[in-house]
Amino acid sequence: MTRGPLRVALDQGTGHSGDPADALDRLADRAKVAADAGVRLLIGPEMSLTGYNLGPDTVSELAEPDDGPLSRAVASIAADTGVAIVHGFPERADGAVYNTVQLVGADGTRLAHYRKTHLFGDLDRDVFTPGSVQVVQADIEGLRVGLLICYDVEFPENVRAHALAGTELLLVPTALMLPFTEVCDRLVPARALENQIHLAYVNRCDTEGDLRYAGRSVLVAPDGSETLRAGPEEQLLIGEVDPEAITRTRAEQSYLRDRCPELYRSLTS
Amino acid sequence: MTRGPLRVALDQGTGHSGDPADALDRLADRAKVAADAGVRLLIGPEMSLTGYNLGPDTVSELAEPDDGPLSRAVASIAADTGVAIVHGFPERADGAVYNTVQLVGADGTRLAHYRKTHLFGDLDRDVFTPGSVQVVQADIEGLRVGLLICYDVEFPENVRAHALAGTELLLVPTALMLPFTEVCDRLVPARALENQIHLAYVNRCDTEGDLRYAGRSVLVAPDGSETLRAGPEEQLLIGEVDPEAITRTRAEQSYLRDRCPELYRSLTS
Repeated sequence: MTRGPLRVALDQGTGHSGDPADALDRLADRAKVAADAGVRLLIGPEMSLTGYNLGPDTVSELAEPDDGPLSRAVASIAADTGVAIVHGFPERADGAVYNTVQLVGADGTRLAHYRKTHLFGDLDRDVFTPGSVQVVQADIEGLRVGLLICYDVEFPENVRAHALAGTELLLVPTALMLPFTEVCDRLVPARALENQIHLAYVNRCDTEGDLRYAGRSVLVAPDGSETLRAGPEEQLLIGEVDPEAITRTRAEQSYLRDRCPELYRSLTS
Repeated sequence: MTRGPLRVALDQGTGHSGDPADALDRLADRAKVAADAGVRLLIGPEMSLTGYNLGPDTVSELAEPDDGPLSRAVASIAADTGVAIVHGFPERADGAVYNTVQLVGADGTRLAHYRKTHLFGDLDRDVFTPGSVQVVQADIEGLRVGLLICYDVEFPENVRAHALAGTELLLVPTALMLPFTEVCDRLVPARALENQIHLAYVNRCDTEGDLRYAGRSVLVAPDGSETLRAGPEEQLLIGEVDPEAITRTRAEQSYLRDRCPELYRSLTS
């Protein structure tokens, strides 16, 4: 079977920080614009429904179960527009709060749920419990997608694990702040290139407390080229992900095939 | 103990392909220039003493044991100039031929010997047996250096293993050909940044058979910034490696500390 390209939207932007109702209004609008453009999957930034740099108390107040009102509202937006949606929020479960993203399918059913495993500094550690599952995947129209969040993608181990598990398009909601543009400009394209996968890195671009987010969301192809690249401002980027590009790139030279896993034991201890 | 910066030279260039005598003459000249500039360590490209794209028969003819005439000649140059030297050659051992680099100290003694573990396509596989030791290190004036060769560095697993083993400056002789400049421009800086180490990637820049090498050798600092960057032409780049830059970079945020190795088991199977 030759699969066709998947049309995706990188939604660089968020509602007012700390105001989920505003975030949902905004998301409904963006999903409609995306649907009208033929988009099948829309990806927002880290903690897209609530804001991120809010402090432990506010985050805890806004936290919900994975089937709470916020997630149900997103499911309605997905079903209304026929666009699958990746959204982020603080998840309350087991007496803890996780930094979570979910993928809701175009019919409103939940397809995947991932909790950030690699916490970034006090900003995360003061608020969140780390997730314990590294590779979470789902299928969208025959394309195997995976989920990571922000700092997770800076660790080559996580993206390699996804590639080994068959992820073709890695979706990475993020909240990357200035001055760390080396991450979006250098590390993220390297992750796609070294694994020969598609990677969508979707950032915030607002100012939140003492943080100014970098924008510069990017969709990288398996050969490391940038299919889409945002500037620092709010933007809905639309582009296509071609599954066959992975096959073509790996036919010439395959990093996965050329690995020597028997040499890599020090990485797990 | 606060260690001072180590002055290094990246010798982007080689003698005439297939002519080791010419390569040694050239190396003696470059080592003298480097010594006069206060350099303590000079690094040449992959197979710097012989040429690389010569075909199995010629490479086999030129292959020597690790203490053969070529290596002894390099040791003399190092001792004469007081400069430690990383050089590459085809090594004959155990009835096989390896793609090898050696590090000779400023007094002419051999400090380290590494055989390329990750072979690149038929170009390597038709000629070489892969090495079986991933991490080879030595100390130069208190700085822990490590050795990889060309394609090895494109695998994040290898550079991570070096960082975990304490490598501070990774030395990577290479023979990167056009059009693969994404490797020297994107992957290599990412390797230094994601491990917060110094990395010297030293390329050829000649034409050899149907290959045209890319040049663009680079010395990357632990924050991902480029201390030195060559163009496509022959060049002796001289710069300094500051061990304290690693400490400073990791004090703010440490990728090694923030890893979750219990999640990485799929990488070794």
